[in-house]
Amino acid sequence: MSVVALVSDEDASPAARAVFDDIRATRKSDFVNNFWRSLAAVDEALLASVWGEVKALMASETELDPMVKEMIYIAVSIANACAYCVHSHTASAVAKGMTPAQHAELLRIVSLAAKTNHLANGLQTPVDAAFDAEA
Amino acid sequence: MSVVALVSDEDASPAARAVFDDIRATRKSDFVNNFWRSLAAVDEALLASVWGEVKALMASETELDPMVKEMIYIAVSIANACAYCVHSHTASAVAKGMTPAQHAELLRIVSLAAKTNHLANGLQTPVDAAFDAEA
Amino acid sequence: MSVVALVSDEDASPAARAVFDDIRATRKSDFVNNFWRSLAAVDEALLASVWGEVKALMASETELDPMVKEMIYIAVSIANACAYCVHSHTASAVAKGMTPAQHAELLRIVSLAAKTNHLANGLQTPVDAAFDAEA
Amino acid sequence: MSVVALVSDEDASPAARAVFDDIRATRKSDFVNNFWRSLAAVDEALLASVWGEVKALMASETELDPMVKEMIYIAVSIANACAYCVHSHTASAVAKGMTPAQHAELLRIVSLAAKTNHLANGLQTPVDAAFDAEA
Amino acid sequence: MSVVALVSDEDASPAARAVFDDIRATRKSDFVNNFWRSLAAVDEALLASVWGEVKALMASETELDPMVKEMIYIAVSIANACAYCVHSHTASAVAKGMTPAQHAELLRIVSLAAKTNHLANGLQTPVDAAFDAEA
Amino acid sequence: MSVVALVSDEDASPAARAVFDDIRATRKSDFVNNFWRSLAAVDEALLASVWGEVKALMASETELDPMVKEMIYIAVSIANACAYCVHSHTASAVAKGMTPAQHAELLRIVSLAAKTNHLANGLQTPVDAAFDAEA
Repeated sequence: MSVVALVSDEDASPAARAVFDDIRATRKSDFVNNFWRSLAAVDEALLASVWGEVKALMASETELDPMVKEMIYIAVSIANACAYCVHSHTASAVAKGMTPAQHAELLRIVSLAAKTNHLANGLQTPVDAAFDAEA
Repeated sequence: MSVVALVSDEDASPAARAVFDDIRATRKSDFVNNFWRSLAAVDEALLASVWGEVKALMASETELDPMVKEMIYIAVSIANACAYCVHSHTASAVAKGMTPAQHAELLRIVSLAAKTNHLANGLQTPVDAAFDAEA
Repeated sequence: MSVVALVSDEDASPAARAVFDDIRATRKSDFVNNFWRSLAAVDEALLASVWGEVKALMASETELDPMVKEMIYIAVSIANACAYCVHSHTASAVAKGMTPAQHAELLRIVSLAAKTNHLANGLQTPVDAAFDAEA
Repeated sequence: MSVVALVSDEDASPAARAVFDDIRATRKSDFVNNFWRSLAAVDEALLASVWGEVKALMASETELDPMVKEMIYIAVSIANACAYCVHSHTASAVAKGMTPAQHAELLRIVSLAAKTNHLANGLQTPVDAAFDAEA
Repeated sequence: MSVVALVSDEDASPAARAVFDDIRATRKSDFVNNFWRSLAAVDEALLASVWGEVKALMASETELDPMVKEMIYIAVSIANACAYCVHSHTASAVAKGMTPAQHAELLRIVSLAAKTNHLANGLQTPVDAAFDAEA
Repeated sequence: MSVVALVSDEDASPAARAVFDDIRATRKSDFVNNFWRSLAAVDEALLASVWGEVKALMASETELDPMVKEMIYIAVSIANACAYCVHSHTASAVAKGMTPAQHAELLRIVSLAAKTNHLANGLQTPVDAAFDAEA
């Protein structure tokens, strides 16, 4: 099921094709996953800007380790119930070296956080004054 | 505002006090934050078991770096809109060495993930066959 | 903090006042909590229709036990991170007989469900054919 | 679609098989649903501990009625958008006696709660002082 | 996959059939989408009342433009991760005149809002006094 | 409560001050709300890029009406339980002409969408083939 028809390489406009090519070059892989083909269908300028953001943050050298960045991305995607994003970023994390043991620990942390998130929200625990940077 | 009255050291039962003491010993700090005082008010057995889970995963040597574990915890807490948890785990991450630059990058990843989560959910992008471990 | 100014009894229009009065009569209490005073500020027809829904489902005899209904309401409110609703419906559940032990068990279930929700979403476990009513 | 390959009975390690056997014995059914087969694929220790939690809370005699516990579990799973969990726990609730009329009422409560959750969050209604246990 | 068996025209009770007929008459289309067939399976009174709400708000002349109303509906559905609702209300918005450019802009707003929602929740930015209607 | 200390005009670096000045010039108002002061505390480059996105989409002439754009923004913020964002974007919508009647209708749509989102997720209604753009 899909809200828009995915854009194939053949149907891509030059602008979309340029983004697809940059995805391939950056990732050193011929595979362009469906997320980009969906975005191409709806908004080429958004395709280019979102890819730009992802490339600059996730596919470049920054403060954090590439695999750690993917693990954080997965954590958010799980909590936001984005099935597509869980699949695609787990694949990315594995490609960047995530071992089965690290994957398991990621899921342990995410699910424990969810547990305590719901406890704190259920108790409406007041934030300690010690945590307030404005105090 | 709080759903239950927080349990002070004086009012704590021996069982709750034992958990508070273990929190202090484990963290090498006299500070017991309100989350545990809320849990003590509602369910001492749950207090002990949740602290046990947090201690085994977040305060012990495991696969992942202690600071990375806190960053993943924060990511989930933000997406689940748990104000208390964002405050407490950001404090923990800082205590475990998170620099301002790392904090900034964490927020960049979390917010970019949220952006693409909403795009993928808005487009209902079909998951690529390549991501299916059952294929 | 509030998006709209709460409507006091004095400032209430006859239509809003009629709803406030029905809330008081139904609950056999003089207390009209802020949610209704917020709704009165923004939309009197919505105030009347939402109160009508709440009264018919939560303040009337239906299939489920009144306290059980409040516990289900709290569960949803926690997962949706509605601070106001957690407070008000926990108070309602207590008023309808929820004991501390039942409150504790509610929180155990909600937080365990959150844990397994995040695990199933993290693993994207395929739904068993046995669960499909269309099969 | 699945992030990990499900573990069949044949491929299960002795540790995973022991959990599968306990699930069968506890539920008096030969059916082991996919959630456990997913967990087995990623982390056998987590499989054992999560099953232990579920068994102790959901498959044992505790404060609340078994069917009521499943209804609370479903409520959280709906709000957290966990498709798998909605399916599996609705099946569990039916197995524990939930009638169509009770299922209908559950959905009425969950959807009404969602409606007022969004109203209270949209209005940012301030929590009444009367609800504050710390006051 | 479905929790309940969908109700076909042939299997519909007179009460459900009357709602289906009103949906057809209101929308001037023979198509009755699955959401209503699901609701019919679980609760005919809920089917009638929810359709009544949707008809009065979304299929009638009110304050806001029909297409704008659908766009707001889509925005909520994306954030709540309701796959079904994203599909059905995007179809409705298109039927009411949403152009591809407007669809693209809707997704830009939704995804930017998600980004800043997560930043504000990650920073726990205190609400400005200027925004408080109770001040 | 705040995770970071807000940056005042006096403490702002030249880069942050430049963004604050552009916010003032764009909005023709001296008021710089706390969200930007939070972002300035954590990441000046992110402050500049997020403001750039907000300015280009929300404070410029685009496809949709300025007030409609704010209403969509509010809808997402409510569903994501971002208290800060609900406050700030409701103020923006009012500044751009949202009447009380339009505000009321926005809340009606958001809360009805939440209701049907939870029903569709609770029933796991299968998406109609007619909605699939890939079919």
